[in-house]
Amino acid sequence: MAAEGGGNRGTVVLAYSGGLDTSTILVWLVEQGYKVIAYLANIGQEEDYDAVKAKALKFGAIKMVVPDLRKEFVNEFIWPAIQANAKYEDRYLLGTALARPLIARAMVQVAKDEGAQFVAHGATGKGNDQIRFELGAYALHPGIQVISPWRLPEFYQRFPGRNDLFEYAKKHGIPLPVTPKSPWSMDANLMHVSYESGVLEDPSKPGPPGVFTMTVDPEQAPDKPEVIQIDFEKGVPVCVTNQEDGTVKKDPLELFVYLNQLGGKHGIGRVDLVENRFIGMKSRGLYETPAGTILIEAHTDIEVFTMDRELRRIKRGLDINFSDQVYKGFWFSPECEFTRFCIAKSQDSVTGSVTLKLYKGATYILGRKSPYSLYNEELVSMNVQGDYEPIDAGGFIKINALRLQEYARLRSKESSQ
Amino acid sequence: MAAEGGGNRGTVVLAYSGGLDTSTILVWLVEQGYKVIAYLANIGQEEDYDAVKAKALKFGAIKMVVPDLRKEFVNEFIWPAIQANAKYEDRYLLGTALARPLIARAMVQVAKDEGAQFVAHGATGKGNDQIRFELGAYALHPGIQVISPWRLPEFYQRFPGRNDLFEYAKKHGIPLPVTPKSPWSMDANLMHVSYESGVLEDPSKPGPPGVFTMTVDPEQAPDKPEVIQIDFEKGVPVCVTNQEDGTVKKDPLELFVYLNQLGGKHGIGRVDLVENRFIGMKSRGLYETPAGTILIEAHTDIEVFTMDRELRRIKRGLDINFSDQVYKGFWFSPECEFTRFCIAKSQDSVTGSVTLKLYKGATYILGRKSPYSLYNEELVSMNVQGDYEPIDAGGFIKINALRLQEYARLRSKESSQ
Amino acid sequence: MAAEGGGNRGTVVLAYSGGLDTSTILVWLVEQGYKVIAYLANIGQEEDYDAVKAKALKFGAIKMVVPDLRKEFVNEFIWPAIQANAKYEDRYLLGTALARPLIARAMVQVAKDEGAQFVAHGATGKGNDQIRFELGAYALHPGIQVISPWRLPEFYQRFPGRNDLFEYAKKHGIPLPVTPKSPWSMDANLMHVSYESGVLEDPSKPGPPGVFTMTVDPEQAPDKPEVIQIDFEKGVPVCVTNQEDGTVKKDPLELFVYLNQLGGKHGIGRVDLVENRFIGMKSRGLYETPAGTILIEAHTDIEVFTMDRELRRIKRGLDINFSDQVYKGFWFSPECEFTRFCIAKSQDSVTGSVTLKLYKGATYILGRKSPYSLYNEELVSMNVQGDYEPIDAGGFIKINALRLQEYARLRSKESSQ
Amino acid sequence: MAAEGGGNRGTVVLAYSGGLDTSTILVWLVEQGYKVIAYLANIGQEEDYDAVKAKALKFGAIKMVVPDLRKEFVNEFIWPAIQANAKYEDRYLLGTALARPLIARAMVQVAKDEGAQFVAHGATGKGNDQIRFELGAYALHPGIQVISPWRLPEFYQRFPGRNDLFEYAKKHGIPLPVTPKSPWSMDANLMHVSYESGVLEDPSKPGPPGVFTMTVDPEQAPDKPEVIQIDFEKGVPVCVTNQEDGTVKKDPLELFVYLNQLGGKHGIGRVDLVENRFIGMKSRGLYETPAGTILIEAHTDIEVFTMDRELRRIKRGLDINFSDQVYKGFWFSPECEFTRFCIAKSQDSVTGSVTLKLYKGATYILGRKSPYSLYNEELVSMNVQGDYEPIDAGGFIKINALRLQEYARLRSKESSQ
Repeated sequence: MAAEGGGNRGTVVLAYSGGLDTSTILVWLVEQGYKVIAYLANIGQEEDYDAVKAKALKFGAIKMVVPDLRKEFVNEFIWPAIQANAKYEDRYLLGTALARPLIARAMVQVAKDEGAQFVAHGATGKGNDQIRFELGAYALHPGIQVISPWRLPEFYQRFPGRNDLFEYAKKHGIPLPVTPKSPWSMDANLMHVSYESGVLEDPSKPGPPGVFTMTVDPEQAPDKPEVIQIDFEKGVPVCVTNQEDGTVKKDPLELFVYLNQLGGKHGIGRVDLVENRFIGMKSRGLYETPAGTILIEAHTDIEVFTMDRELRRIKRGLDINFSDQVYKGFWFSPECEFTRFCIAKSQDSVTGSVTLKLYKGATYILGRKSPYSLYNEELVSMNVQGDYEPIDAGGFIKINALRLQEYARLRSKESSQ
Repeated sequence: MAAEGGGNRGTVVLAYSGGLDTSTILVWLVEQGYKVIAYLANIGQEEDYDAVKAKALKFGAIKMVVPDLRKEFVNEFIWPAIQANAKYEDRYLLGTALARPLIARAMVQVAKDEGAQFVAHGATGKGNDQIRFELGAYALHPGIQVISPWRLPEFYQRFPGRNDLFEYAKKHGIPLPVTPKSPWSMDANLMHVSYESGVLEDPSKPGPPGVFTMTVDPEQAPDKPEVIQIDFEKGVPVCVTNQEDGTVKKDPLELFVYLNQLGGKHGIGRVDLVENRFIGMKSRGLYETPAGTILIEAHTDIEVFTMDRELRRIKRGLDINFSDQVYKGFWFSPECEFTRFCIAKSQDSVTGSVTLKLYKGATYILGRKSPYSLYNEELVSMNVQGDYEPIDAGGFIKINALRLQEYARLRSKESSQ
Repeated sequence: MAAEGGGNRGTVVLAYSGGLDTSTILVWLVEQGYKVIAYLANIGQEEDYDAVKAKALKFGAIKMVVPDLRKEFVNEFIWPAIQANAKYEDRYLLGTALARPLIARAMVQVAKDEGAQFVAHGATGKGNDQIRFELGAYALHPGIQVISPWRLPEFYQRFPGRNDLFEYAKKHGIPLPVTPKSPWSMDANLMHVSYESGVLEDPSKPGPPGVFTMTVDPEQAPDKPEVIQIDFEKGVPVCVTNQEDGTVKKDPLELFVYLNQLGGKHGIGRVDLVENRFIGMKSRGLYETPAGTILIEAHTDIEVFTMDRELRRIKRGLDINFSDQVYKGFWFSPECEFTRFCIAKSQDSVTGSVTLKLYKGATYILGRKSPYSLYNEELVSMNVQGDYEPIDAGGFIKINALRLQEYARLRSKESSQ
Repeated sequence: MAAEGGGNRGTVVLAYSGGLDTSTILVWLVEQGYKVIAYLANIGQEEDYDAVKAKALKFGAIKMVVPDLRKEFVNEFIWPAIQANAKYEDRYLLGTALARPLIARAMVQVAKDEGAQFVAHGATGKGNDQIRFELGAYALHPGIQVISPWRLPEFYQRFPGRNDLFEYAKKHGIPLPVTPKSPWSMDANLMHVSYESGVLEDPSKPGPPGVFTMTVDPEQAPDKPEVIQIDFEKGVPVCVTNQEDGTVKKDPLELFVYLNQLGGKHGIGRVDLVENRFIGMKSRGLYETPAGTILIEAHTDIEVFTMDRELRRIKRGLDINFSDQVYKGFWFSPECEFTRFCIAKSQDSVTGSVTLKLYKGATYILGRKSPYSLYNEELVSMNVQGDYEPIDAGGFIKINALRLQEYARLRSKESSQ
């Protein structure tokens, strides 16, 4: 990878954001003799896509591709995560981790379409995203080669500090950020915004005021709660109804965006946590995932309501596998394909409606109903005997106790010796 | 149980609440020829213990025992549950399930001390509590015999409706409830209050206003949040500090009661859920667990912060085992003893402090610190390379991708055939 | 169930073996006023089915049904168990447990066809089979009623000892066993024979000579080994080829019977073990499962050869679930249906051939091949670098070590304080 | 690491076998400017340790250290593996994987004692051993630096073929192997010998005759079986008694060596398998583990006999974790320390004796006894009712069926719509 002059070293598809770092990488790749195709996936983040495109071409890209992946994101990535009640280490809803394989898939497609031998990205060498991105690329296109400049000594040793980057940028006409760099980094998409590094690296200090962007501070949220109903079919949300104003959303993307708005308005889905990166470090992050938070609460409720207890016990084990696989970047793997397949099957009966109240940072389940519930009001009733013989419970208990009694007898025999 | 007459059929320790049902049982047991020792465990519920005692003796008990188990409850049952972040089916914090084995243990002790051959209780034949109670009793005293009137045809067929109970009560001077029976049943202790049955049996309808007793409605909670710090040592809470007013609590029972007050004031810890009983039915319950909810959130945070990732993955599996064991009544079992032992060991490094904000029904983690954290601010920093070679990550990814590439190559070979 | 005289109490389908116990039950049921339909499933056991039928009719059955379930047994029950490498508690291949749900299914079908309200069986009250049988029946026909005489006091108290049974038999013309009862009980079907109770109840004593019936003593097995090849498609055995004499078997039932012969000849598949019954007791059993043993060894080999490592890790967890479900009688349950579905999916690539040697009680894998193996001879070769950069392994190791180094540093910091 | 001439680059402890490869590495390291301390662990392999030492010094090592680690190997590594019934992917008994952390520990100790900054080894870049070795070293000495020549381009590119190695050897007086290189590689220690690569890389071909060295071919084993008794205390073998000749072994190392002799004589413990390396490749190996195989069979038997069913279910999950951890080189990790701790605790009651027959490649359990068994001969007996009410089993079954009946009813409601 040592610099080689003007010769053509091949074509590279670069994940390009328009910012200082990836602009620098773009210019550097051209300098190294690559043809560069800039690529930016629209996964729901706020962006002036035309301006980014103009920049890419100005800095030497031969082309810029901007696919709109929002619907795929919701249907193929977010819905399976809701079905899995997916939380990494009990708390992180995987907003970034779910987007990476989708971005990688579309990028590899560009590489195939354009005959590019390389893909490149600006992820750092300490994070999870390099892994998710590259595992996705290798899995879908085993022969692809990855250029990760922040892991290449010839690149990162050239830019040991931000000032070196600034000088290079000035020299090559890359505009410097007009505002000072925000004191943390963020990653935004349709599902969430994450915040980490900078001042957030001290895990004992709360995130500074103003850090969040999708949600209001719960203390600023409306004093009046809102009640909504979410309908699920086979574990997938198919309709949201606002019981206050009658709004109804059925299109998956619209439904998800609407729940983001509602959740954002009520300050729902903020977390401050420390997590374990795949690379083995602990890192601190702030996340806000409004729609995802609401949906997982509602889905969990309808799932317990409609699914057999023992089936769910097994399914919950698969959920944990799924969350780990996604977090670590193994979406496109034999094990994750299998896990998704099994989880989807488990959702056959997860059909019904959940009613929730949204209020100042939290959601409250108010009730649920389903045509397929295993809940049997008569059977469980304290006032009706139903098709149930209380005496059977005595036998059930005695048989369950047998093992414990034997154990106790053995113990007392031991201790009396 | 057929024989009746006046003769002495032995001594029975009866779990006695002073209410209509257990008073009826008391009278009935005496009538059947048993000597009855009434027993009521103080596990933190509000109760006029003297009045209950007077009743018991009036209705024929030869004695009433009222042990104060609150400290044991916190130290031996609630703390292990916090260490296990224990939630049954992701949501129920096990407030009742944790108390039952303690109640059974003390009751069996009374039976041993008094030479009683029997224990009796007023739990219904459809619930979990009969199981928890009896498994505990059999495990600790394999030779004990259990009388469960609501499972005995000669008892429950005598009282097919509430009116039959009322008539029997009137005849034997048992006072009827002055207020009409509340339209649901509840179980209260230091850790939680649960509400179920009656109008709550319709899972689509929200709990009626006024159902909760430990917590205010979040909408009525103070507009001003409160910030507290909780210190843990080996996974056990050892100090709570209110950063607003400087209150400090260190005694386990006081600390827990104080967190209940704070949580209650801010409306924290309410849930409405459907769960799967051990007996195989789905049932709907409302729970409020203020201190428990706060503590599990804080404990989860400090645990992830201080515990190795892979150790925690194994430990979380044990947590799920623990929750199931407790829910089903297997506290005193070889497997639960083992699980508790292992979980306790996992907590060796779980020492540190968590800061949280309490506000209108929710808790928000603000930060955490620990002398033993594996969090390494320098290692994770985006601005410092530290003792970390970015190039290693490239090798890490390539090796992880190897398996995926082989799989992809095989697949494309298959599909090209 | 108290005796009632000649009136018609309904129709019962009785699992009838022709032996003393079920003949007695038959007569007793008729005596109690039931119409009895005798039922005997042919699941591959040696039996004079006509003689049994004649007996049933002689003792008062209105009909006898003898369905041949052997093909269903292999295709629908044994094959899934092979795919799951199913062993309960690491050792028991579930020969009886797999047959029970099939027997129950066909019996319930008879009950439906004949409009019978009851099913009855002669299983004892301490074993697993009553559970497997009845759970199957209730799951497939929730309204069915089960009569289990050995759990009915009015029945078992009438026959407290074998002599009482003999007297009753004599009185009703039921022939007594001509030979003394064998000093153990056995259960035979196509898959295995099991031996338990009687002299086998002392777990410290070896099974007496002559106990086994499907297999020769390994010490008596041929001195010359035999080599066979087994071909699998999606985890199911589809062909066995004897490399000595060229015999080829492809029909599922024939293939399985042939492997039983081969295994039996070479003394393969005997185990002596103690297991934990669902009921909570430990019991000692001897089993011989010749074909099953060979097939699970071969299947395990081809599975590891063709299946991705991480997928298999998840699949093995499901295997353990499956074995437990089957052992406990939950074949017809939501969780077992789900588990079988997922395991079957995992077998998509488990296609290929395994060569084994059979010799004096053991099987030895000699080699395996597959069109879909993930084994890559060039990649793994020590003599060829292939598409593999050794330096990547260094990065892989360093990143994996990061977590361990942090842990070591923390520890040494702690211990130096 | 670029060559530097004669200057001192520090001290390196080299894992030295005396063979061509590590001799070449030794000379090369000296050439590169390192002081080399040669190190060879005695873990039970056959070796002329003095000759190796002489070689090392001749080729430029400043010192040679040969610790005898055999007792530690048995007590601290093999015994925990027996307690865990440890098999990787159901079949590999981890003979090499268990030795690596021990070798690494002693080697790091040499590095600390001698003030060496480096450790080096001759493992290849495609295998597991580099990982196990280095993870151990980093975990125990986070600041250590590892030199792995077969992963260093400056080394391996210098020796692209065996001939280049031969020429270098000749030039430096390193004796070439007198016999042609055996057509596979092997790794031997007290616990096992493994064979892989070379002609064994074709997984469809059986291992050639004569490949095994610890065990005879089962076809050549004695025609007369031998019966032994193994006594365990808390899951650890404490005595072996040969019932044929009365030999008794109690010292751990002697006991293990004796079982190797017996197992070897009877051809026990050979396996031919394909496994998944940590690195992601499938590889084929032949292993022979005579004593380990016998001990795991015996230990499994006494464990099921003495351990509660539900406790063992949890423990078996930990066993699988343990096997994976050891295979991957994470012996010295927080998770493996924890797992070993928990497994050891689970063995509290695993005390008793197992009798086995050894015969032509296989072991046969004949019986077991224990002072602490939960096996209750009276309880399980078919002839004695004991303290067991058959009627209780009916209630047990009915309650277990409840869930299944509800499921069936829901389904039939669904299908009738």
